[in-house]
Amino acid sequence: MSISETLRKIKEQKPLVHHITNWVTIYDCANIVRAIGALPVMAHAIEEVEQMTSISSALVLNIGTLTVDLVESMILAGKKANEKNIPVILDAVGAGATDLRTNKAVEILEKVKISVLKGNSSEIGIIAGAEAETKGVEAISVKGNLVEISKKLASERNLTVVITGKEDIISNGKDTYICKNGHDMMGSFVGSGCMAASAIGTFAAVEKDYALASTNALSFIGIAGELAAKTAKGPASYKTIFFDEIFNLDKNKIEEMIKIEKRE
Amino acid sequence: MSISETLRKIKEQKPLVHHITNWVTIYDCANIVRAIGALPVMAHAIEEVEQMTSISSALVLNIGTLTVDLVESMILAGKKANEKNIPVILDAVGAGATDLRTNKAVEILEKVKISVLKGNSSEIGIIAGAEAETKGVEAISVKGNLVEISKKLASERNLTVVITGKEDIISNGKDTYICKNGHDMMGSFVGSGCMAASAIGTFAAVEKDYALASTNALSFIGIAGELAAKTAKGPASYKTIFFDEIFNLDKNKIEEMIKIEKRE
Amino acid sequence: MSISETLRKIKEQKPLVHHITNWVTIYDCANIVRAIGALPVMAHAIEEVEQMTSISSALVLNIGTLTVDLVESMILAGKKANEKNIPVILDAVGAGATDLRTNKAVEILEKVKISVLKGNSSEIGIIAGAEAETKGVEAISVKGNLVEISKKLASERNLTVVITGKEDIISNGKDTYICKNGHDMMGSFVGSGCMAASAIGTFAAVEKDYALASTNALSFIGIAGELAAKTAKGPASYKTIFFDEIFNLDKNKIEEMIKIEKRE
Repeated sequence: MSISETLRKIKEQKPLVHHITNWVTIYDCANIVRAIGALPVMAHAIEEVEQMTSISSALVLNIGTLTVDLVESMILAGKKANEKNIPVILDAVGAGATDLRTNKAVEILEKVKISVLKGNSSEIGIIAGAEAETKGVEAISVKGNLVEISKKLASERNLTVVITGKEDIISNGKDTYICKNGHDMMGSFVGSGCMAASAIGTFAAVEKDYALASTNALSFIGIAGELAAKTAKGPASYKTIFFDEIFNLDKNKIEEMIKIEKRE
Repeated sequence: MSISETLRKIKEQKPLVHHITNWVTIYDCANIVRAIGALPVMAHAIEEVEQMTSISSALVLNIGTLTVDLVESMILAGKKANEKNIPVILDAVGAGATDLRTNKAVEILEKVKISVLKGNSSEIGIIAGAEAETKGVEAISVKGNLVEISKKLASERNLTVVITGKEDIISNGKDTYICKNGHDMMGSFVGSGCMAASAIGTFAAVEKDYALASTNALSFIGIAGELAAKTAKGPASYKTIFFDEIFNLDKNKIEEMIKIEKRE
Repeated sequence: MSISETLRKIKEQKPLVHHITNWVTIYDCANIVRAIGALPVMAHAIEEVEQMTSISSALVLNIGTLTVDLVESMILAGKKANEKNIPVILDAVGAGATDLRTNKAVEILEKVKISVLKGNSSEIGIIAGAEAETKGVEAISVKGNLVEISKKLASERNLTVVITGKEDIISNGKDTYICKNGHDMMGSFVGSGCMAASAIGTFAAVEKDYALASTNALSFIGIAGELAAKTAKGPASYKTIFFDEIFNLDKNKIEEMIKIEKRE
């Protein structure tokens, strides 16, 4: 499906997108799902995560402020999502910065069938076994060709890999996309990465080709980010306009601005 | 008291409004209390909740991201609030979506004397024993007449029931109010429901007729919501203007726009 | 270093500022660090706090929604920061309101070598042993001269004390500064106090004179606050403009508006 068709389907079906996420950007994650037209729900109690997942259409896991208990809830919810055959997005925030983050990201990947693994270049690099440095939640460096890393990791783990950056790389091992939408100002405020994962979860709730769903979601928010840059005066007014654009973007604007490249 | 008199009293007394709430909208809950002119405090540690409640003028409990531990803190704080005879608001976020939420909402109602029970139609419907469906934190359906459900539940439990929706229904079993203020755009961003509970808590801190306090609080934020819709360009600019209006609303504007209907 | 030199160094080095903070303003704390040009990271799991601190350039501890477990993580991280000789900021949010807050603030001070202890007048007053009242997280009253209290406490504990208020007082026992920048509207929304601590942490990451770093940070955000007041229409638009100004402020504007007084 095209971006516009996906958006139409989201607004029609209002899929429930269950998050177990971090405490920093939890509001923005919920808010972008709502702005796109779906229903967010945030629920992490071990006693309810399975039941909440079982009424949801997608599950987004984000380890930005993980604890051991929270990851336990993520794994339970993830297994239920696998049973129900709904997509599971894993945002590996900070993998590489501490052993806890790296190890828990890998543990989740081992115990849950993840549909889309998302991170910046060093987060994904570390999980792929490359030499990489993550400073907090920021990519500093990674050795190797990112497109090759994404393709190889996607094939090995049988999932879609998303590497966000100046250009986003999306690969399921066979299809590889480069998304060139976006704007530097998206990095001027906290949370655009987390929101990208939530947008991917929302698109994947109605589009079963997860590489395409991820690419379209990133292009969509990237276009909103480009439009916001035209009138914003700083990071806070930028974020306001960015959200307004997410809510308002129409088919014509999207088709005019979309910049996705498919690679073999 | 009228809305304006209530607001004046709030700005004068600056009541402390203690919240034990969810991690998604916790900031907005605090922020609306401040914008109205009172003092918010968020404190959930089991070791301090009683002491914090004991210096507060209202207690707001919100189960939006409940855990078993958090509910334990809520019950302790609630009992202290009952001892001190200050109002306790319970926002039953997601009741009906999972057993944990339904059961804990009921457990709090059994163990704490709640002053105002607030929810959307399906959340309240479920607690009232009606057939209802909650999708995450969104009302999907409820069987039965909402006004009758609110009146009956209010009488049975001896509290004020608030059902939010296109029109808000408020009943203490005897007095029933319909608040017709508000705007669809209030649902375009996450958190207006939670903020409504915090506003009710703030009004109830200085107005002992809790049905009136709840109705006035909902009308007040509804008016701000109507005004915001006039110039907003999307959900984020809408929310900014909404908060500015909450802060700025004056007596004349309120009296001109108030739409409350009292039913026997 | 001057404010402008400090800002330039921050943008150049992009120091990592590790926070263990509260769940209300956690987003804004991260966001102000980013707006200034540094990298925020929020991490509280006991298993990773030491490792995260060990790659950071400053540590900000904020007890706004403390639990016993969270304070344990703070102390572990604080000890690691001491080992690494990076600055540790303690924001004693709500000290005096409950015994838990007062006792834990003091416990952290005993177990960790704090570089900058920050609070409002009653929070600092209580820790200094003065008679004081804190209502939630708001200063109500404190007995004694605030400049004297800050100087004495700074000398006794061998740290920098920051008392925020209409005029901010900063003292390391020898150098005492009064910062007169700022605007009443900074109190119209929730979180400016927490953000001040995060800004101090960011400045202290590159300026080893912590009293100067604190004073400059407070003057810097105060100037942004003054500028925001010129066009804001209420607390939410004020906060948006405030963040935009933090991001955009240039050397000339800062030098023109800075209001710092040094006292012997």
